[in-house]
Amino acid sequence: MGVDEMWLNSSKIKDTLKDEVFYCNFDEEDSITLRLRSEIVNWLGLKLTTKQELATIKLEIDNKLDKNLEAYRIKGQQIRGTSSKGVLYGFYAYLRRKLIKLPLEETSAPQQALRMINHWDQVDGTIERGYAGESIFFGRFGSNDNTDKGSFEVKDIGTDIFRNDFTRLEMYGRFLASIGINAISLNNVNVRGLGTSLIVSPYIEKVSEIAKIFSSFGIKTFLAVNWAAPKLIGKLSSSDPLEREVRLWWTKVISHIYQVIPDFGGFVVKADSEGEPGPYQYGRNHAEGANMLAEAFQPYQGLVIWRTFVYNSQTDWRNRKSDRAKAAYENFMPLDGKFAENVILQIKFGPIDFGVREPLMPLFGALKKTNQLMEFQITAEYLGHQIDLNYSVPQWLSMIHFSNYGQAKDTVRDNSPVPNNSGFVAISNVGMDENWCGNKLAQANFYGFGRMCWDNNLSAEQILDEWLNLTFTEISAITQKKIFTILISSNRTYELYNAPLSVGSMMVPHYHYGPAINGYEYDRWGAYHFADCNGVGVDRTVATGTGYTSLYESSIAKKFESLEEIADEDLLFFHHVNYRHILHNGKTLIQTIYDQHFEGVSCVKNYIEVWQSIRGEVDEDTYNNVAERLNLQLYNAQNWCDQVNTYFYRMSDISDNQGRQIYK
Amino acid sequence: MGVDEMWLNSSKIKDTLKDEVFYCNFDEEDSITLRLRSEIVNWLGLKLTTKQELATIKLEIDNKLDKNLEAYRIKGQQIRGTSSKGVLYGFYAYLRRKLIKLPLEETSAPQQALRMINHWDQVDGTIERGYAGESIFFGRFGSNDNTDKGSFEVKDIGTDIFRNDFTRLEMYGRFLASIGINAISLNNVNVRGLGTSLIVSPYIEKVSEIAKIFSSFGIKTFLAVNWAAPKLIGKLSSSDPLEREVRLWWTKVISHIYQVIPDFGGFVVKADSEGEPGPYQYGRNHAEGANMLAEAFQPYQGLVIWRTFVYNSQTDWRNRKSDRAKAAYENFMPLDGKFAENVILQIKFGPIDFGVREPLMPLFGALKKTNQLMEFQITAEYLGHQIDLNYSVPQWLSMIHFSNYGQAKDTVRDNSPVPNNSGFVAISNVGMDENWCGNKLAQANFYGFGRMCWDNNLSAEQILDEWLNLTFTEISAITQKKIFTILISSNRTYELYNAPLSVGSMMVPHYHYGPAINGYEYDRWGAYHFADCNGVGVDRTVATGTGYTSLYESSIAKKFESLEEIADEDLLFFHHVNYRHILHNGKTLIQTIYDQHFEGVSCVKNYIEVWQSIRGEVDEDTYNNVAERLNLQLYNAQNWCDQVNTYFYRMSDISDNQGRQIYK
Repeated sequence: MGVDEMWLNSSKIKDTLKDEVFYCNFDEEDSITLRLRSEIVNWLGLKLTTKQELATIKLEIDNKLDKNLEAYRIKGQQIRGTSSKGVLYGFYAYLRRKLIKLPLEETSAPQQALRMINHWDQVDGTIERGYAGESIFFGRFGSNDNTDKGSFEVKDIGTDIFRNDFTRLEMYGRFLASIGINAISLNNVNVRGLGTSLIVSPYIEKVSEIAKIFSSFGIKTFLAVNWAAPKLIGKLSSSDPLEREVRLWWTKVISHIYQVIPDFGGFVVKADSEGEPGPYQYGRNHAEGANMLAEAFQPYQGLVIWRTFVYNSQTDWRNRKSDRAKAAYENFMPLDGKFAENVILQIKFGPIDFGVREPLMPLFGALKKTNQLMEFQITAEYLGHQIDLNYSVPQWLSMIHFSNYGQAKDTVRDNSPVPNNSGFVAISNVGMDENWCGNKLAQANFYGFGRMCWDNNLSAEQILDEWLNLTFTEISAITQKKIFTILISSNRTYELYNAPLSVGSMMVPHYHYGPAINGYEYDRWGAYHFADCNGVGVDRTVATGTGYTSLYESSIAKKFESLEEIADEDLLFFHHVNYRHILHNGKTLIQTIYDQHFEGVSCVKNYIEVWQSIRGEVDEDTYNNVAERLNLQLYNAQNWCDQVNTYFYRMSDISDNQGRQIYK
Repeated sequence: MGVDEMWLNSSKIKDTLKDEVFYCNFDEEDSITLRLRSEIVNWLGLKLTTKQELATIKLEIDNKLDKNLEAYRIKGQQIRGTSSKGVLYGFYAYLRRKLIKLPLEETSAPQQALRMINHWDQVDGTIERGYAGESIFFGRFGSNDNTDKGSFEVKDIGTDIFRNDFTRLEMYGRFLASIGINAISLNNVNVRGLGTSLIVSPYIEKVSEIAKIFSSFGIKTFLAVNWAAPKLIGKLSSSDPLEREVRLWWTKVISHIYQVIPDFGGFVVKADSEGEPGPYQYGRNHAEGANMLAEAFQPYQGLVIWRTFVYNSQTDWRNRKSDRAKAAYENFMPLDGKFAENVILQIKFGPIDFGVREPLMPLFGALKKTNQLMEFQITAEYLGHQIDLNYSVPQWLSMIHFSNYGQAKDTVRDNSPVPNNSGFVAISNVGMDENWCGNKLAQANFYGFGRMCWDNNLSAEQILDEWLNLTFTEISAITQKKIFTILISSNRTYELYNAPLSVGSMMVPHYHYGPAINGYEYDRWGAYHFADCNGVGVDRTVATGTGYTSLYESSIAKKFESLEEIADEDLLFFHHVNYRHILHNGKTLIQTIYDQHFEGVSCVKNYIEVWQSIRGEVDEDTYNNVAERLNLQLYNAQNWCDQVNTYFYRMSDISDNQGRQIYK
């Protein structure tokens, strides 16, 4: 088996279109139109004529099509776009509709302007929170390790840090464009080792080779930077954003980048977070920090993407009034309106860190004068490491449709002073593994993220159906439905056997896979559950807790604040609750914990049965890949179930009312 | 400051003896007599005459002195030994007595025949469980990292694995001989990477350079071997001890070693333990495994030191009948009498793993037909990493004086068919740090171990007094007493703020420093505390528990079995006890837990005050070194106190009866 083409199965597509003759009606060429021609001729091996009258499929630019430059229209055999980028999107949309036999009639423009992927790839080839082998950008050509680990120091691999696997990069660019991604950052936001030097020669020249490929797919390349770069690689004595020589240094560095990469996207910055350097150490605020870079980018329309994942990672568990959930709000809300036009705040969807159940981060809806990106995590850091199945689109959609002063999917754009500088961003889950994601079925998440960015009104079911149709065209509708049933419930199943009722953070420290109920309970990371012999949960109410509920619009706040009104699944994120408290489901909290964990395990057992029943119907690689991981998932689910249930049984001394096996 | 000479302060000694003239009365020379001459002339720069009549101090061999070849007698200015080795020991004993002004009158022979040090040094320079910098044997010349970490993979550093710091090795050899050590193994018992090849060319030739130095100090060199070496480096298809070609391979390897190192000591073997290979994988028992090597060593009087630290490290926490404490007994007791004469079982003093409070391993006293070594750990893996003060000699003495069919210090020898093949062994705590041990005061443990091996009747107080006198000759008796008071109580203090009442294993996994109450509770290592809302502890009784108590002599077993008779400090190792149970101290278990933890912290605060009061009286390096670590110890003790107390308060809902601060 070669490298998986994901949904873009070239032989299948070629077969479908083998009788067609393409014609490109462009006034002038750019790197995207050349890519389009190459896609037809080189990738698919189809006919491309220069004689309009011989054509059966026409590709055209029509700048009056829509005010959105990325829009496209498919009308029978005609594919038009407002720009070459629109045509490119239309081209892949045409392929998609053709493969799954939808009517060749569609007008479409993306709803989020920025549709971005962040890589946490490191210059030694490892990937922070990567579960699908090494980086496709960095590392040794031909090598691929499984790099799942708890710490992310970068080892010195010399100066030859680029993998140079351009075939792979082209495949990746194609996949990204086919789902509408238009921006990518290549390296980990924790910028270490030679990663700090990617922005200068001789590394930036190598980055430009990668950026050129992405450019031709309509994707702008960004780099994550180390805030202390002026000191670390510029040899200045300071990185203070108000220091003249610091500003000058950045100006020079950025000017040089644009000489090498004329359409460079900009920087992604994680500053003052989890030990990374930042403006606070110079007594400057984050607006001062970001705006300094923005000024240097201004001549080139470059962007500064500034992460709000700023919290005190030296939290004292003894202080129950401190609340990490409030940190981003408290750090950034006072700065609303203070950021330059080409700065965008990148804000995680939830207030903690991509847990399987978190409420929407209250900055969404509240920030009204600041460009915003909502951040998601495709890589399954807290969601089973692409071992356990977890189709996460339902959870993401619940976030973008959540209304705090308006639905988040709209407020992200509507509250951004420059709507084009807003959108969604997600951490990639791909690596050098042959199927890109470790688990074949984890491709659905990457696909789904792109589709969700483009069309905010697609449902999780629609996206999944589409992906299954494209990916498993050869299998029967019944078999497809079986896989559908597994995947559509998988995020909820993972939640069932994980930390109960949104309390979060009971996993093995650093690795974040598998249970360790007290793994972070007495640690400095501010993620606690406060279980005692009477109850469990974090009191974030205004009345008796940290007051976090007050950060939401009053009607939402009221609901979260109230033990009666709050939904069961959000309960322990907001309240410390007695084990005998009766939930909306009519059961006690403790019984609900037990029931959910037993149910979670039984769901996984059922997945295994279903999967076994389709043996021979999906290709053997996929079958074995998923079967093997389902067995690991069962072990994990059982482990979670046993440890969580035993933990709370030992704590509460309350037996399961159905007498099932809970170890003493 | 150069490298610390430990108690062997050459300028102080030289000053004391500057008017003396040494004379060596030996019939023939060997490497030890040459070393003795060199110690006088090169190390101390003192006078050595060849004219007996000019001598003021005479060194002589008198083989009728004692039946023990290592014995010495000091009589005024005459130092005699049964052998050159005896003279060497007498020489350092003379220096010791001279420095601390004891009468120059002593006849002495060691009580343990083998007095051995194990190093867990790795070929990349790291040390498993090392807290004083890198290995003195391996690693790059001139480099020294702090290598405290949780995992011990060996990185590839090329073929040049030896540090070649012979000055350092000579200092170390001198120190070892001065405290009576006569055997050393150089490398980690988890033998990885190039470590497996130390027993063959070209590495064994480099080992011989180290062995030569130690030989001259009366110390035999051993190597730890990987049981699977025939497969790993011999390229055989098996390592089965009953396979002819495997036996032949070992015979060849061992024969070659003796060509290179004629007085080579033998092998140390960790087999079938914690993932290491061993005879079990070929369906052979440990006697078959060990005897195969013993046969190959037999022509050279080489030894096979076989560790009994064999247990199932895939234990299921769900099964409360499984008990790691029983493992060594169950694996080795049935083999008593089955081992060859040149095999020695190396048995940890306690049944788990060097915890601050464990009962004596019941194999001692029970094994009657097998050569034995009792194993201690000088390196403070579970005792504070040489950050927290922990003078461990009191704990070790309580072990050797514990009687299970006789005092362990005697049964080790008395129950060994070849008494010369018995004794004590300990894991070293030294590394490349300037003061060897990270913490200057941790030298007392190494010194104490050697003295305890030599003279089983010394008390912990005597040993400490001796070490303080030798090490801090310049300070006042009052100041010395202050340091004494701190150190003599430090093992108990550590116990006070650690896991309560011998329950053990509540530390951060892998690192083993700092609290993580549930760190191993649901893990596979078989070290649990089983705390629930009613009580805590491991039921190891025959009546209701794992039956471990039955492994002891009946009177001991009866005492451990009885909740009324058992000492408070051993309680939770043997019983699962309700928090409201009244201990011998008149208090409830839960109150005892609280009290001990508050007391532990207050002891450390007191240590800091005492230490501050001697500022200016000890040298500045020592003062700062210890002061800095005491501050870290306070942080650690407070952390243990807060986490343990909160954990049990949350569990039990029982308040401290003195209303002190326990966090909710």
